[in-house]
Amino acid sequence: MEILQVVDTLVCTQRHPGLQQYSLRVLRNTSGKLQVAIDPCGSREGNWVFVISGSAARYACEDPTVLTDLTVGGIIDYWDVDNGQLETV
Amino acid sequence: MEILQVVDTLVCTQRHPGLQQYSLRVLRNTSGKLQVAIDPCGSREGNWVFVISGSAARYACEDPTVLTDLTVGGIIDYWDVDNGQLETV
Amino acid sequence: MEILQVVDTLVCTQRHPGLQQYSLRVLRNTSGKLQVAIDPCGSREGNWVFVISGSAARYACEDPTVLTDLTVGGIIDYWDVDNGQLETV
Amino acid sequence: MEILQVVDTLVCTQRHPGLQQYSLRVLRNTSGKLQVAIDPCGSREGNWVFVISGSAARYACEDPTVLTDLTVGGIIDYWDVDNGQLETV
Amino acid sequence: MEILQVVDTLVCTQRHPGLQQYSLRVLRNTSGKLQVAIDPCGSREGNWVFVISGSAARYACEDPTVLTDLTVGGIIDYWDVDNGQLETV
Repeated sequence: MEILQVVDTLVCTQRHPGLQQYSLRVLRNTSGKLQVAIDPCGSREGNWVFVISGSAARYACEDPTVLTDLTVGGIIDYWDVDNGQLETV
Repeated sequence: MEILQVVDTLVCTQRHPGLQQYSLRVLRNTSGKLQVAIDPCGSREGNWVFVISGSAARYACEDPTVLTDLTVGGIIDYWDVDNGQLETV
Repeated sequence: MEILQVVDTLVCTQRHPGLQQYSLRVLRNTSGKLQVAIDPCGSREGNWVFVISGSAARYACEDPTVLTDLTVGGIIDYWDVDNGQLETV
Repeated sequence: MEILQVVDTLVCTQRHPGLQQYSLRVLRNTSGKLQVAIDPCGSREGNWVFVISGSAARYACEDPTVLTDLTVGGIIDYWDVDNGQLETV
Repeated sequence: MEILQVVDTLVCTQRHPGLQQYSLRVLRNTSGKLQVAIDPCGSREGNWVFVISGSAARYACEDPTVLTDLTVGGIIDYWDVDNGQLETV
């Protein structure tokens, strides 16, 4: 599972009905590459999240027929882009 | 899901019957890499789209036996190649 | 689906029986990376083809139990390595 | 299957219930890229492990409905980051 | 399917029982990147092989519940790292 940062919400008036009502997030990795994911975890702009890809991404939505290859799996509590996770415990 | 721009329609007289009657699009990412996708969304040359890969790409066609590993999932309303999505709301 | 050029046929005396009698092609992308695919479309050396990956590659063979992760999906009518598809219509 | 080194345990208060009680590891490859995996093998910080990706990652958990695309498959006995596996037998 | 060279056998005392009794090979591509695969074909150090990835890798073992995402599919008869396959027929 990859670690990415939420940068935006994607606006698509014409989109596949198989994506249902799910909100789409634009995410960026540390090299600047952008990807789009479904988010059932309620992430917000600036959050660092980890994402689930492949067939597991579909099962991660409440309805497994949702058409996605990337789904947010969790919001990381503390993440520093230069140093990774901060020692917090 | 990746963000790509439609550059062309692919002409293949000899193609696998499992692709059925679907139109094939040539898409390009920001590094210039080309890929081919099935498009059930009606995208046009110049549109920025996001694409669904893997097994979900097959389910994204009305007939899930269509042979594809990449399917257009939606047309992005406003996209700037340098700045990403424009603030529109 | 990726766009690759056929460079050779692969000779493997010891190969997995699950590949059956299928011919194996060596393909090259524009960066020079080589890959191996099953070809049910009858491509020839020098042809530019697009290939289907993942689970769809198995369904693209007449027998879906064939063990492959890459199958030729079609032969591109006209392709120029520098300019992509030529305007032909 | 890739070879990665365990660098940390990931702390996510808000995470998908489909990940169940599994511990999440942050892993790093030799280029410094970070990934997150489920670990049913009991790896510790500093260990070199190999990881299973894709649909097999789900089956590698005792419960195949666990939502993961990367699972630790084994801890390598001796690994040298510069020279790979040491001659040990 | 990728073309890789066998460099070693991987020693893992603590490994997932789902890998069963299969021997694990360390393989290297032409850029030096290492990967781990199950080998039902009997390859030896120095052999050039092609590997099957994804769900097909599991079906390539006699028992499809084996946990792998990469399996050796065949041993290439003649391969030259600089020139690819030699003309042999």
